[in-house]
Amino acid sequence: MSRNFTSDNVTPVSAEILAAINAANVDSVSSYGGDPYTRRLTDAACKVFEKDVAIYPVTNGTAANALALSQCVQGFSAVYCYEAAHIVTDECGAPEFFTGGAKLIGLPARDGKISAKQIAAAVGFALEMGVHHVKPAAISITQATEWGTVYELAHVDQIAEVAKAEFLPLHMDGARFANALVHLKCTPAEMTWKRGVDVLSLGATKNGAMCAEAVVFFNPDMAADFERRRKRAGQLLSKMRYVSAQLLAYFESDLWLKNAERANAAATHLALGLRQNSAVQLLHPVEANEIFVSMPEKMLAGLEAEGFGFYRWPLCVVARDVAIRLVTSFQTRLADVDAFLAACRRLA
Amino acid sequence: MSRNFTSDNVTPVSAEILAAINAANVDSVSSYGGDPYTRRLTDAACKVFEKDVAIYPVTNGTAANALALSQCVQGFSAVYCYEAAHIVTDECGAPEFFTGGAKLIGLPARDGKISAKQIAAAVGFALEMGVHHVKPAAISITQATEWGTVYELAHVDQIAEVAKAEFLPLHMDGARFANALVHLKCTPAEMTWKRGVDVLSLGATKNGAMCAEAVVFFNPDMAADFERRRKRAGQLLSKMRYVSAQLLAYFESDLWLKNAERANAAATHLALGLRQNSAVQLLHPVEANEIFVSMPEKMLAGLEAEGFGFYRWPLCVVARDVAIRLVTSFQTRLADVDAFLAACRRLA
Amino acid sequence: MSRNFTSDNVTPVSAEILAAINAANVDSVSSYGGDPYTRRLTDAACKVFEKDVAIYPVTNGTAANALALSQCVQGFSAVYCYEAAHIVTDECGAPEFFTGGAKLIGLPARDGKISAKQIAAAVGFALEMGVHHVKPAAISITQATEWGTVYELAHVDQIAEVAKAEFLPLHMDGARFANALVHLKCTPAEMTWKRGVDVLSLGATKNGAMCAEAVVFFNPDMAADFERRRKRAGQLLSKMRYVSAQLLAYFESDLWLKNAERANAAATHLALGLRQNSAVQLLHPVEANEIFVSMPEKMLAGLEAEGFGFYRWPLCVVARDVAIRLVTSFQTRLADVDAFLAACRRLA
Amino acid sequence: MSRNFTSDNVTPVSAEILAAINAANVDSVSSYGGDPYTRRLTDAACKVFEKDVAIYPVTNGTAANALALSQCVQGFSAVYCYEAAHIVTDECGAPEFFTGGAKLIGLPARDGKISAKQIAAAVGFALEMGVHHVKPAAISITQATEWGTVYELAHVDQIAEVAKAEFLPLHMDGARFANALVHLKCTPAEMTWKRGVDVLSLGATKNGAMCAEAVVFFNPDMAADFERRRKRAGQLLSKMRYVSAQLLAYFESDLWLKNAERANAAATHLALGLRQNSAVQLLHPVEANEIFVSMPEKMLAGLEAEGFGFYRWPLCVVARDVAIRLVTSFQTRLADVDAFLAACRRLA
Repeated sequence: MSRNFTSDNVTPVSAEILAAINAANVDSVSSYGGDPYTRRLTDAACKVFEKDVAIYPVTNGTAANALALSQCVQGFSAVYCYEAAHIVTDECGAPEFFTGGAKLIGLPARDGKISAKQIAAAVGFALEMGVHHVKPAAISITQATEWGTVYELAHVDQIAEVAKAEFLPLHMDGARFANALVHLKCTPAEMTWKRGVDVLSLGATKNGAMCAEAVVFFNPDMAADFERRRKRAGQLLSKMRYVSAQLLAYFESDLWLKNAERANAAATHLALGLRQNSAVQLLHPVEANEIFVSMPEKMLAGLEAEGFGFYRWPLCVVARDVAIRLVTSFQTRLADVDAFLAACRRLA
Repeated sequence: MSRNFTSDNVTPVSAEILAAINAANVDSVSSYGGDPYTRRLTDAACKVFEKDVAIYPVTNGTAANALALSQCVQGFSAVYCYEAAHIVTDECGAPEFFTGGAKLIGLPARDGKISAKQIAAAVGFALEMGVHHVKPAAISITQATEWGTVYELAHVDQIAEVAKAEFLPLHMDGARFANALVHLKCTPAEMTWKRGVDVLSLGATKNGAMCAEAVVFFNPDMAADFERRRKRAGQLLSKMRYVSAQLLAYFESDLWLKNAERANAAATHLALGLRQNSAVQLLHPVEANEIFVSMPEKMLAGLEAEGFGFYRWPLCVVARDVAIRLVTSFQTRLADVDAFLAACRRLA
Repeated sequence: MSRNFTSDNVTPVSAEILAAINAANVDSVSSYGGDPYTRRLTDAACKVFEKDVAIYPVTNGTAANALALSQCVQGFSAVYCYEAAHIVTDECGAPEFFTGGAKLIGLPARDGKISAKQIAAAVGFALEMGVHHVKPAAISITQATEWGTVYELAHVDQIAEVAKAEFLPLHMDGARFANALVHLKCTPAEMTWKRGVDVLSLGATKNGAMCAEAVVFFNPDMAADFERRRKRAGQLLSKMRYVSAQLLAYFESDLWLKNAERANAAATHLALGLRQNSAVQLLHPVEANEIFVSMPEKMLAGLEAEGFGFYRWPLCVVARDVAIRLVTSFQTRLADVDAFLAACRRLA
Repeated sequence: MSRNFTSDNVTPVSAEILAAINAANVDSVSSYGGDPYTRRLTDAACKVFEKDVAIYPVTNGTAANALALSQCVQGFSAVYCYEAAHIVTDECGAPEFFTGGAKLIGLPARDGKISAKQIAAAVGFALEMGVHHVKPAAISITQATEWGTVYELAHVDQIAEVAKAEFLPLHMDGARFANALVHLKCTPAEMTWKRGVDVLSLGATKNGAMCAEAVVFFNPDMAADFERRRKRAGQLLSKMRYVSAQLLAYFESDLWLKNAERANAAATHLALGLRQNSAVQLLHPVEANEIFVSMPEKMLAGLEAEGFGFYRWPLCVVARDVAIRLVTSFQTRLADVDAFLAACRRLA
């Protein structure tokens, strides 16, 4: 039984994905992405997104986000995003590094979702400042968000409208893309390019892969020279087949959706139980696989003493009590959740 | 009569400084700072600051700030500063460019003055985040601030205490250093290294020079390789003598203090007059040579129609009315101020 | 039978390494390198190198080289290396990117081995140029070299002497480290820190791993903040255990040496056979697992027609004929070599 | 009498240019280039170049070159130039810094003039290397060259042909543009855009200005966002009028040509005299205002003892003897040259 709710990246790799890696371990194939797996991945991605897309596998989400943004902006650019977005607080400056110093303009937001109005106002301010200020160049939103919430499609439409009006590419950090997808019950196309998303960081590692993410351009013309950009960033693996094979297995038989459904279901179950415990308070709606709750320090210490794993979450500001993050994954069983809920009841 | 209150950089150059430039126009001298003017500047700066300092002339404040910070931090670093500091909003990303992508962590602040407590909290958050977050590496404060206020010496002490405790170099953006100095009636040493300031961007251009600022390290050991840093940033002028000569004249006979006294006196006079006009509202204490006021749009339009120059200030958020910035300089005469005040009374 | 001599990175993964990846696929473990595999890797590396070392796994050689250099130098720095070193010609500017623009000073060299004397002269020139020129900051040598040759230990000693005299960290690009090791029949310690090497890019991918290389600092004090550097470069994998497990298996039971011995033996066998064919000419001594030969275009076309794989090598300048590169790997069987040699004889 | 032949940047400023600076010292004018002087400069430049051009004043040649190149290329780019070009050896990595790490591919060249054939071959190699190599993105030539020679117009035509065929912007480092112009006796248009030059670093400082150079785009569409690029590089002076005034005076009444004619004439006179001294050897044709000669160490020491100033030149490799550089300027009088020649004769 797993008592580890620290993150969805502490888990092993999905059996299907590991099998695909093993199956790819035959024959000599061309290196640096010239292999049949990588070619098939492009076909698979076009099918998944119902559109000609350009897809570039990389090994992790930091690289995917930083590379995607660096393709859209320049060093004297502004990227508009949520003030506590992963790209702002959790990537040790990777977006600034890859873009040559672009500025992430962080906007405050309830539940992690920035509004079209905020972006428009910030862009207006920048344009008023003129040459003294960085130039508006891109918008980045996280789906599902850093608080486990999900942008409604109409919300993305509003942001995309500003993006189009101001000629700003719209980037989606999809580290938990599949979790948002199964919550919204829509297609990948509906959540991205049909809304106006231009470039996607597609996560797989948190949802069952080993080290596989991808940058997806919905207009392949936007990807000019991206291969050199990826190469010089140290993300062009010589044995690329093993990353591509992970992503192929991820898409195949809808593994990605199945894994995300299990993770989300576990989170929903956990949230339901926690709502019935008056000692804890849910801090955000639970729409994907992350749950943020506050509870008395004593209760929290009790859970830790019983071996449950989770992070105290520094970004949450709560009046009293302590905030923690609980993350479920495709491996979380309902029994794991029930054990946690039972302990909470005992310690309340 | 001048009706131009847009900025202190719209003025010509002080007669004394122009004379010094003209006087330097004799003989062949070594280029790239190997000239006698630049050597004498170091002596002059050591005398002004009552300490062995390393001083490096550059041509403008953006370069001074960005170079100073780049000497203190690395690309994966955090610089703590006011959220609307000049380095954040007005330098088009120069600090990020020169530092290789360091992140400016902007803190909200009344009157532009950040507190030691805020900084300590932000540093604490960063350390809790660990390797995922940029590393605390420097603090930058602006003296006088972007809102025309001045940090009291005790306030700087508090910030310096955090700086020392966390091993963070303390940078002072002194674009209007002299204006702060004459307000506090203290010595340059008392406002800087005696407080714990490690590196200063010393402004002269807004206070009578043509294109002369300097980066001053109070501990010359901190300046290792700074000459190469300046060179590759395009700030090592071949005919450096003409910049050094400006700074020499700036210090000589206390020209810098005299100029700043005149600018501050005009601002004080202007503030006094505006306070007696019930139609306008002063938005910040007036302690240097910048004044921020809100007034009805109609009154503002009237002033513009009469030829007065000033900027509507996008950073000010005012409930109603419109915010403008008025800047006085060493060239502003009291008659200029009186004319403005009279117009305000007429238009109220 | 494999006719593919294009590179040592077209091969699958060693059975032992794939087994280790599969074996690591159990339980939840801490992410981002906080797992037991990564901890054990440090122990293993210290044992292999007979010294306390700091080892940081990354996913590929470009990242290893660029990160290692970026730890040693600054943007205004010079790195001395062979003019056609991999870091100069094959990494799409990654070293410049990661270092913030350091200049690689390429020195001409027979067989890819630069001399201490050349380096000393180039450093002398730089110092004479002073602030106008980038500052000497590091030396990088490739072992085995880009031409399949190997630096003798005494040669490394001479370079290390210049490095020490000029306070330049000495970096070794060990993409084919194990191949050099088995050629020299010395220990890893003898080929590195006992010679004066400060930081090593340790390759494993070309020699049987999937996506595993490491940066090794022989003086852990040199690694300050390297974790943040790696993080912001997109090389801190969340599921790091799978990279560390590869490297553990690589070292275990001397797999790395066994694999390299097989690759080198195949190359030696190939070279021996080619030397007896008067139509081809070996361009460099064969000391590792790369062979460069020139042959008539007609013969080359014949080999291609028979399905043999290899690259025409643009860097070779040969008077007449065409130059190609042949690479052997741990998977190359002597029968594969014999088939190639037989075809060469037929086509001569 | 001046015995200083070290450089053309040791001189004072031309009387006409200093007068223009003094004359600009009236009234308040808009800052950051919104002044009438800067507006008039654009008109003057269009007239000088007989074309609509975009001209951006900066304070020095390093900034001009680095900014110009950064507008043309990206971090994963290659710039083709002479291996000992000023941008390679004398700007402490500024081009790499401003471009985000682009690689300068240095080509060997007799008299500092690279050939179209060399460039085409290097570009061909890069393209053959594909994604592993930096992408060909620009060509940079220096006119007059670093060896005091001048590209013939037909030579520039040949290089421009490669540039066009490969879609590479052609940059001209015109630190001594006027000296080349008077040598060729052609118009500025004929030496630049009529040949296919896309962007020019126009030098004035070495030829009489104080701190004034400019980046000139012959197709203003190429200058998109250049203002922000200049701003964040610390080259947008608040009191820009004083730089623009220098350039206005530089063009007015053909001051630039008159100054260059005097400098070139002095160099020609010096070369003529040196050719008649069998103890010295001219190392390059003398076509502008720089002379490179080798002479016995004893003779050289004698000249130094007599107070003549010049640099021993580290880049020159001469079989025996020592190489020095002599530079003449608009201030060099023929009597100064005669004194030097007489000393040479005495010391021979």
